[in-house]
Amino acid sequence: MMRIISVLLAAVLALPLAAQTNDELVTSFVLDNGMQVVVVEDHRAPVVQHMVWYRAGSADEPKGSSGVAHFLEHLLFKATDTLASGELSATVAANGGRDNAFTSYDYTAYFQRIAADRLELMMRMEADRMTNIRLTERDIVTERQVIIEERNQRTENNPRSLFNEQMNATMYLNHRYGTPIIGWMHEMETLDMDDALGFYGTYYAPNNAILVVSGDVDPAEVRRLAEQYYGAIPANPALPERLRTEEPPHRAARRLVFADARVAQPYVSRSYLAPERDPGDQEKAASLVLLAEVLGGGTTSFLAEKLQFDTQVAVYTGAFYNGTALDDTTFDMVVVPAAGVTLEQAEAAMDAAVAEFIETGVEPEQLDRIKMQLRASEIYARDDVDRIANRYGRALASGLTVADVQDWPRVLQEVTGDDIVAAARAVIRPEASVTGWLMQAEEAIQ
Amino acid sequence: MMRIISVLLAAVLALPLAAQTNDELVTSFVLDNGMQVVVVEDHRAPVVQHMVWYRAGSADEPKGSSGVAHFLEHLLFKATDTLASGELSATVAANGGRDNAFTSYDYTAYFQRIAADRLELMMRMEADRMTNIRLTERDIVTERQVIIEERNQRTENNPRSLFNEQMNATMYLNHRYGTPIIGWMHEMETLDMDDALGFYGTYYAPNNAILVVSGDVDPAEVRRLAEQYYGAIPANPALPERLRTEEPPHRAARRLVFADARVAQPYVSRSYLAPERDPGDQEKAASLVLLAEVLGGGTTSFLAEKLQFDTQVAVYTGAFYNGTALDDTTFDMVVVPAAGVTLEQAEAAMDAAVAEFIETGVEPEQLDRIKMQLRASEIYARDDVDRIANRYGRALASGLTVADVQDWPRVLQEVTGDDIVAAARAVIRPEASVTGWLMQAEEAIQ
Repeated sequence: MMRIISVLLAAVLALPLAAQTNDELVTSFVLDNGMQVVVVEDHRAPVVQHMVWYRAGSADEPKGSSGVAHFLEHLLFKATDTLASGELSATVAANGGRDNAFTSYDYTAYFQRIAADRLELMMRMEADRMTNIRLTERDIVTERQVIIEERNQRTENNPRSLFNEQMNATMYLNHRYGTPIIGWMHEMETLDMDDALGFYGTYYAPNNAILVVSGDVDPAEVRRLAEQYYGAIPANPALPERLRTEEPPHRAARRLVFADARVAQPYVSRSYLAPERDPGDQEKAASLVLLAEVLGGGTTSFLAEKLQFDTQVAVYTGAFYNGTALDDTTFDMVVVPAAGVTLEQAEAAMDAAVAEFIETGVEPEQLDRIKMQLRASEIYARDDVDRIANRYGRALASGLTVADVQDWPRVLQEVTGDDIVAAARAVIRPEASVTGWLMQAEEAIQ
Repeated sequence: MMRIISVLLAAVLALPLAAQTNDELVTSFVLDNGMQVVVVEDHRAPVVQHMVWYRAGSADEPKGSSGVAHFLEHLLFKATDTLASGELSATVAANGGRDNAFTSYDYTAYFQRIAADRLELMMRMEADRMTNIRLTERDIVTERQVIIEERNQRTENNPRSLFNEQMNATMYLNHRYGTPIIGWMHEMETLDMDDALGFYGTYYAPNNAILVVSGDVDPAEVRRLAEQYYGAIPANPALPERLRTEEPPHRAARRLVFADARVAQPYVSRSYLAPERDPGDQEKAASLVLLAEVLGGGTTSFLAEKLQFDTQVAVYTGAFYNGTALDDTTFDMVVVPAAGVTLEQAEAAMDAAVAEFIETGVEPEQLDRIKMQLRASEIYARDDVDRIANRYGRALASGLTVADVQDWPRVLQEVTGDDIVAAARAVIRPEASVTGWLMQAEEAIQ
């Protein structure tokens, strides 16, 4: 039922969105209890996407309780004062809709996609579980086993996930982005009722939530319903400031080797600490989005040209950047070597290509092509969850504003070739990097 | 005035202590308010060492407040209800004694060394500042500047300190031992009155403290005084459990390169995650102490023999292990290459020597010689702070018992050559290692 956004996946999904904001009809306001509301009208079909985003993700968890944000997300499908366990989802399904939830570093979100005339029912149920969950010890035991099994499936059984986890933990010296969203297994095993209710009591409150409704709705009617259902819930006066530990200066290039017998295809991964989108200040992030595209965004990218076609040292290359985050994020590159090419050779070829790129600069034609792609609607096909409501909710939960979301396509289009090279020079800092080699166990070196 | 125990220093200082415990006269008891008391009689000179240890160090700090344990240590020399700022130290000095304090990962300790007949005065003042400090905003501003300057002097101006800091941060994926005791600069700069008083209010209480008195004292009299001064302070009923986040499995060998223009002498450092001394279960730690000695404990060690004398690839070699810690610690090796030898060659030679050591095993004569050294009193000359009171206080604050302290010399003596090799095989795990190269900036590689 639940989905964890992995770093790599998030990077892929975060491909820039452009064009359509000009015709987005957005209304935003704040309820008296502090709950932020964003309504995006889209009358092409009689459906609605109803989402509640909490400004609380895995990076907000208390130390020693990694995984509790995601654990609680599971538990919100259990009983409340008025709903039996599982009744919310069953009701959504019985009304022809679908519902789900997801947890990331910076937020936890719950949503239903359903016929527009069912919006009131959705709000009634979602508002109910914001404040009225009633958990049993059996729920705790059962769902803890479910998340442990989820970690087994997604992480323990997947050497690439384990590798990414070690890369992140090595990148972040002080920030909780170094802790996996799903949690460290040994801490997940200790999660209990107190952990879950502690997180719920601290963060699940209207003054820490964002309601996003998109689709065939009237903003005035959404406001009336929101005031009726969410407005009735008192703010939490003890809501803590969002404490995020910052990174100290990174001063040493780091490397790691992850060797696992299950690895079929070794590769090199390189991460650099990178700035995120900041409210009113999205230019650097936009340049990094374009850099990722120009450098490793597909078969016409610079890395592909050099490593996959010219020298054929690689069978795959990629560059990734997800700027929608509350705090410093990463710029990542991956090179999968061709048969007979060592990881050392692949890495050297990657570094040489990046250096050449910085010397050469961006081809104007390629940049135009990428910007056109950004504007073109087919880009959305690459991102099936990143709908309008998602885009607003994720940005707002990550410290951005509605204006930032609306500016973003323009900011992206204004990036120049020089901006991209400047962004590359700024982010390519060996002392703020982690280089990882994913290897088959039998060829492992120290 | 203050001293930070750095990891390397702590490792060096932790050289094993043996022999003399058989004639230590130790009395230990617990006051009604939960304060633990250890009295060690030593009537050779009319002096006393009076120490109060708090089970609260930098690894117990709230996230985002790194350095607050050490900051508070400074602030405890300011005013209380009955003492003016600086009066405690001035009083100690006026009575012919000396006083100081220190902060480490697992504890903060305050001590006076003074004529035995002044013990009551020391207790009165130490008990006073356990509960009655009165800080001004001026104290906060002044002492924050002092600790920042201390970090500038000890860390920022010292590439080896910066290198060690990055090594630790890279080693620990989840545990606060990865955060420097003195704090990250950007967090130290934000420490305020609330941070200091929050830490004080949470952890400075008799039920979180250990009183250690050694010297020319009568245990019954110490008890009477302790009950009078410390016994009058109520326990903190809200004292939290000592929450220490544990490491997840280490799965990837990590490396880092720290390049700095100020580095005169490059070297290779290797750290492995290693178990600590556990109550009633000190054998593994004892084997690692002996391993460090056999492998890199001086000019007759295996690494010195192979790398400094036989092949002359190194001008210095060393191995270090400090097992007195609450949680997993590290086993460390250092090789400083000779002129003309690269760090790569030095590292390869180190790994080859360690592999050869594991194959060859321990020479019985060398082991006997080391055990004899452990028993010999000259070992204490290498450790001018690790007096009797320090030894008990540090062990008790690190989760050990009086019996563990007394058993420790015997446990060390019972380690066999096979135990040492087994310990080496267990701790030398590439996937739980960090290898660091400290380099001159101009020869840096990525």
